Amino acid sequence: MPVQAIRWEENGVTLIDQTQLPERLIYLTIDDYERLGLAIRRLEIRGAPAIGIAAAYGVLLGIKSFDNTSSKIVFFDQLERVIQYLKSTRPTAINLAWSLDRIRGVAQKNQDASIEKIKEKLLNEALAIHESDRLTCAHIGKYGAELLKDGMRVLTHCNAGALATGGIGTALGVIYTAVAAGKKIAVYADETRPLLQGSRITAWELQEAGIDVTLICDNMAAYLMQQGKVEIIIVGADRIARNGDTANKIGTYSLAVLAEKHQIPFYIAAPLSTFDFSIADGTEIPVEERAAAEITNGFGKRTAPVDIKVYNPAFDVTPFGLIKGFITEKGVIQPPFAENF
Amino acid sequence: MPVQAIRWEENGVTLIDQTQLPERLIYLTIDDYERLGLAIRRLEIRGAPAIGIAAAYGVLLGIKSFDNTSSKIVFFDQLERVIQYLKSTRPTAINLAWSLDRIRGVAQKNQDASIEKIKEKLLNEALAIHESDRLTCAHIGKYGAELLKDGMRVLTHCNAGALATGGIGTALGVIYTAVAAGKKIAVYADETRPLLQGSRITAWELQEAGIDVTLICDNMAAYLMQQGKVEIIIVGADRIARNGDTANKIGTYSLAVLAEKHQIPFYIAAPLSTFDFSIADGTEIPVEERAAAEITNGFGKRTAPVDIKVYNPAFDVTPFGLIKGFITEKGVIQPPFAENF
Repeated sequence: MPVQAIRWEENGVTLIDQTQLPERLIYLTIDDYERLGLAIRRLEIRGAPAIGIAAAYGVLLGIKSFDNTSSKIVFFDQLERVIQYLKSTRPTAINLAWSLDRIRGVAQKNQDASIEKIKEKLLNEALAIHESDRLTCAHIGKYGAELLKDGMRVLTHCNAGALATGGIGTALGVIYTAVAAGKKIAVYADETRPLLQGSRITAWELQEAGIDVTLICDNMAAYLMQQGKVEIIIVGADRIARNGDTANKIGTYSLAVLAEKHQIPFYIAAPLSTFDFSIADGTEIPVEERAAAEITNGFGKRTAPVDIKVYNPAFDVTPFGLIKGFITEKGVIQPPFAENF
Repeated sequence: MPVQAIRWEENGVTLIDQTQLPERLIYLTIDDYERLGLAIRRLEIRGAPAIGIAAAYGVLLGIKSFDNTSSKIVFFDQLERVIQYLKSTRPTAINLAWSLDRIRGVAQKNQDASIEKIKEKLLNEALAIHESDRLTCAHIGKYGAELLKDGMRVLTHCNAGALATGGIGTALGVIYTAVAAGKKIAVYADETRPLLQGSRITAWELQEAGIDVTLICDNMAAYLMQQGKVEIIIVGADRIARNGDTANKIGTYSLAVLAEKHQIPFYIAAPLSTFDFSIADGTEIPVEERAAAEITNGFGKRTAPVDIKVYNPAFDVTPFGLIKGFITEKGVIQPPFAENF
């Protein structure tokens, strides 16, 4: 059974500090919404579905001091400020905005109720978002596992596992489900520079769960494919446009092109909350650029010259034409989504 | 003017310890052939042409205690042992074997001369190999620079620069020559996991030489190409088969496939000593696998779980069909080489 990335407790949100993996398994309990936002920004909690859940709980932390004696105007002001702040922590993943909009919607629907009643409704909504993600992962796992034959070798990138979600993960959920059904599956995990989510997190969580996993550098994936060692590629997503163009961790587009060249099926595993029908295609997805130090000073040591110019996009966009299918909680679908859902 | 990677001095071979870059610029003076072999194995000196030169000098270190009073049988025994040892330090680069075979050939041709005379001939041969590589780089630079238009953006991988050769480099020699001719050239350097020769060495040597260079992670190259930010790709080579299949640093094949997809010309810059006409195609090139720790403990800190399985091939083989041309000291050529040289 994979680990649990995040949970709501009486005294706050408890999450695994993923920046400390694999060296240390440290649980943080956070009771302050700004500290929670920082945890999202610092990638202590990461993965599109997981940060959606964390942000929903974060709203609760931001309004915890209010009760029925408080001013409702001040309460709603603070609610909106907290939502805006949490939304600003990561720009690419759509689940963050989606989750916060759900919370705001519940607050608006219940605006005539007492503050304590509203807070209760918001907590229930956050818990429902979390529980729904757990079930979503289970369904993604079930549909995706049908694509995996006994003995198959799967390549994945970054971490779309239990540590990225409220359940067993999306891409890795597919693998957990296939293995639980008795299939022998071998996984290659790209280390995923610059932040090494593949080696630090995916390799760790698969190893913990007893899955056969081999770590490679990102630039080795093509050579594996050339040798016939990869039969299917499954990765997660941060945002999927109406036409199927998909933003995911930098390096995903590279794998999709390589998969096409080697005729290897390339799948995205993602919940419906990752689909953003408000945008027509990938050109409208904002791509977060992160600090140069992630590349030059990655892990306690400078590995590039001082003052070197760096380009550090955190995501790329894979055109839908390179994607064989989208593994969702409703089944494996292709665009146009509006008709095929 | 780029730095000099290696030089012969009265008291031994002086080389830059490239494992210390970019943090420290340390010159090692080595007077022992086994220590020199270790320097090659540890990648303190690296790059196919540079290790060929280093090995030729290494032979001199291995026979330095012999003079005309020594037994000639013992001398030739030791010469052969030193050559075999140095040849064994890296399996993929052909220049190493090529250079050592040249040294052995001179010894055999002069076997009737005195030991001191033979040693003099061998030193002259090693110096000639070095000087010839310097000139070769200059010629590769001249021919390659004709491919670079003013304002062009070039992507390179690993380090095929001054620090990999006895001169200005091969792939980077092309860039130095174009810039010296007044062209404005922007370079993207892949960091080149696992050993980061791109960020540690290429970025450093280009920055030192005042060239416009931007560092990226290997998995970002495809996204740059998708955005139209790369107009030509030039890399070095460790061994080129008769049909043009080319072994080079892991990740090169990946770039070649991505270049094909984005219709970007992909060139190999390499001296003729890199061509191995004894092998028909890339399937015969041995690919060195290196230690797991290069991937799991690369940044001064463990970044992967203990006991994780790792696959760490140091090279890959790019089929000739993906290569637009080979920039050599005789001009830019295509296979079949036997006819086109």
